[in-house]
Amino acid sequence: MGMRIGELVERFGGQLQGDPDTEVRSIAPLERAGPADISFLGTGKLRAQAAHSRAGALILSPLDEPEVAGSHEGARILTGNPYAYFARTAQLLAPKEAPRAGIHPSAAVHESARVDPSAWVGPHVTLEAGAVIEAGAVVDAGCYIGREALVGEHTHFFANVSFLARCVIGARGVVHSGAVIGGDGFGFAVDEGVYIKIPQTGRVLIGDDVDIGASTTIDRGAMDDTVIEDGVKLDNQIQIGHNCHIGAHTAMAGCVGVAGSAVIGKYCTFGGAAMVNGHITIADHVHITAGTLVSNSIAEPGRYTGFYPIAPNAEWERNAALVRNLSSLRARIRALEKELKALEGR
Amino acid sequence: MGMRIGELVERFGGQLQGDPDTEVRSIAPLERAGPADISFLGTGKLRAQAAHSRAGALILSPLDEPEVAGSHEGARILTGNPYAYFARTAQLLAPKEAPRAGIHPSAAVHESARVDPSAWVGPHVTLEAGAVIEAGAVVDAGCYIGREALVGEHTHFFANVSFLARCVIGARGVVHSGAVIGGDGFGFAVDEGVYIKIPQTGRVLIGDDVDIGASTTIDRGAMDDTVIEDGVKLDNQIQIGHNCHIGAHTAMAGCVGVAGSAVIGKYCTFGGAAMVNGHITIADHVHITAGTLVSNSIAEPGRYTGFYPIAPNAEWERNAALVRNLSSLRARIRALEKELKALEGR
Amino acid sequence: MGMRIGELVERFGGQLQGDPDTEVRSIAPLERAGPADISFLGTGKLRAQAAHSRAGALILSPLDEPEVAGSHEGARILTGNPYAYFARTAQLLAPKEAPRAGIHPSAAVHESARVDPSAWVGPHVTLEAGAVIEAGAVVDAGCYIGREALVGEHTHFFANVSFLARCVIGARGVVHSGAVIGGDGFGFAVDEGVYIKIPQTGRVLIGDDVDIGASTTIDRGAMDDTVIEDGVKLDNQIQIGHNCHIGAHTAMAGCVGVAGSAVIGKYCTFGGAAMVNGHITIADHVHITAGTLVSNSIAEPGRYTGFYPIAPNAEWERNAALVRNLSSLRARIRALEKELKALEGR
Repeated sequence: MGMRIGELVERFGGQLQGDPDTEVRSIAPLERAGPADISFLGTGKLRAQAAHSRAGALILSPLDEPEVAGSHEGARILTGNPYAYFARTAQLLAPKEAPRAGIHPSAAVHESARVDPSAWVGPHVTLEAGAVIEAGAVVDAGCYIGREALVGEHTHFFANVSFLARCVIGARGVVHSGAVIGGDGFGFAVDEGVYIKIPQTGRVLIGDDVDIGASTTIDRGAMDDTVIEDGVKLDNQIQIGHNCHIGAHTAMAGCVGVAGSAVIGKYCTFGGAAMVNGHITIADHVHITAGTLVSNSIAEPGRYTGFYPIAPNAEWERNAALVRNLSSLRARIRALEKELKALEGR
Repeated sequence: MGMRIGELVERFGGQLQGDPDTEVRSIAPLERAGPADISFLGTGKLRAQAAHSRAGALILSPLDEPEVAGSHEGARILTGNPYAYFARTAQLLAPKEAPRAGIHPSAAVHESARVDPSAWVGPHVTLEAGAVIEAGAVVDAGCYIGREALVGEHTHFFANVSFLARCVIGARGVVHSGAVIGGDGFGFAVDEGVYIKIPQTGRVLIGDDVDIGASTTIDRGAMDDTVIEDGVKLDNQIQIGHNCHIGAHTAMAGCVGVAGSAVIGKYCTFGGAAMVNGHITIADHVHITAGTLVSNSIAEPGRYTGFYPIAPNAEWERNAALVRNLSSLRARIRALEKELKALEGR
Repeated sequence: MGMRIGELVERFGGQLQGDPDTEVRSIAPLERAGPADISFLGTGKLRAQAAHSRAGALILSPLDEPEVAGSHEGARILTGNPYAYFARTAQLLAPKEAPRAGIHPSAAVHESARVDPSAWVGPHVTLEAGAVIEAGAVVDAGCYIGREALVGEHTHFFANVSFLARCVIGARGVVHSGAVIGGDGFGFAVDEGVYIKIPQTGRVLIGDDVDIGASTTIDRGAMDDTVIEDGVKLDNQIQIGHNCHIGAHTAMAGCVGVAGSAVIGKYCTFGGAAMVNGHITIADHVHITAGTLVSNSIAEPGRYTGFYPIAPNAEWERNAALVRNLSSLRARIRALEKELKALEGR
């Protein structure tokens, strides 16, 4: 299932250098690409590698074209954002499974659940009363769809997802295996040291074009809903507490944790294992470095960081001991300042 | 399914202000509550909001009553712990699924497993030989209950829980989807760099009234058992290593990790992503802040903290470089002290 | 199913002190062991306890023998690595489930999947087209084995594992419940703030003798494969990003996260919740302390650390404020140095 380069340019734009009839069949990294592959040059650093790549076609920036044009023998597409162009091309060329539709005979489907005829419900799936699976959606083996939950059009649940009662996900989402959406929020009152559970009666509402990684968990709200807006991308093993609100097109890398009732803006990014305290607000366009604990609200866009720098263990031991005694270091500085003043006064 | 305020006070105590025949049907936050809702004032900060709430009934502290009484038009219940009172009320009013009993025909139940007639075993559940499901317990779709494992009375397993051989959980527990209880502990001997597995032959023993969050994992003991005492509350994505012992009524927020053989006291709390080293002991009533690594035993109750403070990235860069060089800062202070002494001596 | 001590020594070597006909039936820790148990002394610290243990047999170092020999009444095996010897003994003595073979009638097995007659495929398992389960492998209830995925000889998947299309695991592996292997890597291009998915077309290739913990997730590669070499041991809740390469006999404790394209050497160890940035390289024999973020490549073997030291909260507050102001402390030191110089110059 190859594709002519000329057809790519008709679809996605860009300026073509070379033969529009060049046909590519798959994507490959620069160093492995051959005449039937298309590859891309994302960063100027790899210019030399691109120039000598055997790729049948290259996607690159006009800025890199002069250096590459001399040596590269295939076709080239010039575009301002080669990586995005490559992503779209890769989606076209990626091998696709034949679409499946229907309900596997082993699935347990409540009589009041509705499954669009174009959707797929795999083996050992459970659909509780009132669950809805919309057109073109795929619910792979072993998934659990709770009472009155809704899976939107063309959304794909990989195997063994738990999507609990009354949760909603929009169109074109991807939810990976082991994800749990709609577990109870962690809400308890304390009475003389003993915890009393607050029933968690809200839902999880997820917009369109949202990706949710493997083993990621998103809790339902306590009284109101937990909300994940359109285009949010969550990697694996992320925890989102109850009543959080995550703005559109925000992305989080693996192992991030967000405590309950945090409100996060749009177009934010979170590095791996970043943590967000509960009941705080983070503005749009905030970028949090990996391993950073966000302890308070952030009102200004920008990059924020807070992790302890790594060092050889002995060096860390030495410096960590000083961190523990910074106030005594400061006291010594103060004493020096005083003495010096006294001395100067003499 | 409403309830008279008078009946609430008969059940839970408190002092009633207003009409005992006021009927409430559901719970709601202050700002959304209407005449059929009951809400609560947990902190004095929201007094003004409570005073103008349209809630049919309010639960609040006698301390807040004077300011609220003038404007709030519904009934009020005065109590020393409004949040706990609200939790009990919410449990009463929360919509409940009709209880199910029996064994779904798709479940794979070993002939030697025992299921109380009042318990529910959902679709695609597996019960291995000798598994026991006690009265009123609910085991939702896709759960796995291992050989000779026991699920206590009225305990609820949400869909897709793995509860492995010989593990035991007591009464009134809640285990959320994706939780894995009784996986092998991470125990290996090393012989010339190669790991040799130590068979993990202990169990996980869980008391009554324990909540376990989505995707939380609790490993079985190596030779002895891993023990979780009564009333412990574990949020999502928590990892408890083999042979840990967690005291009654201790609560842990999401993403906490506890390494093997740690012994944790009663009534402790752990903020999100706190980490506990193995083979250490933590006293009762210890509170660990989010993001803190507990590297050594803690003998005294109190709050402990250890996370790197977040800052704008440039500021962090500057300070982190100094953290890495604290010993040279100290050396400069020492030099100053010496010189000053010399100068004073002149 | 007991075993003579003499037979143990024939199998595993070591020097026998006492009656070779001493029979042991199970393993136990020193303080609990009785005449039918075998125990071990791993560290000199427990010598006194070993000396008074009632264990029928003890495994210990020749260095500890003199102090133990006087009081211990059972047999003893002397060996240079008592813990490894104990591990091998424990494997022999551990109670084993009767091996099962065949395919449970509730499993959904595609007609093109191949299952060795000596393998076990449990209830509610799904095997997609072309999946292969080799001799002696065990695939417990609720597992999902994707299209053309391969489970090697004598590898054991506990219940509810998701092993996605085209992934491969070698012989004698152990994969615990809730693990997800082969989810899509977190790869997106950004175009005007909106994420465009890069199809993840690589696989996860796992060697022989690899253990993977509960709820651990390993993503498939973007174009190339994610590779886990022989003998790697991963604890629970670990996240391995796409295109990572983890060298043989490296071990990671719970909650570790490794971002995409990290290359990690052989014989490394990672403490709990350590985090590794993407696109970096870590040499062989590197040891990372728990809670440490590895932000850059590490070329030299050794131990590396970087976590903020825990302290009583008030002390932490004081010192954290100073960490945030280290540059002003340095400025004060500089000022002092200057003034002092001026003073000395007078």
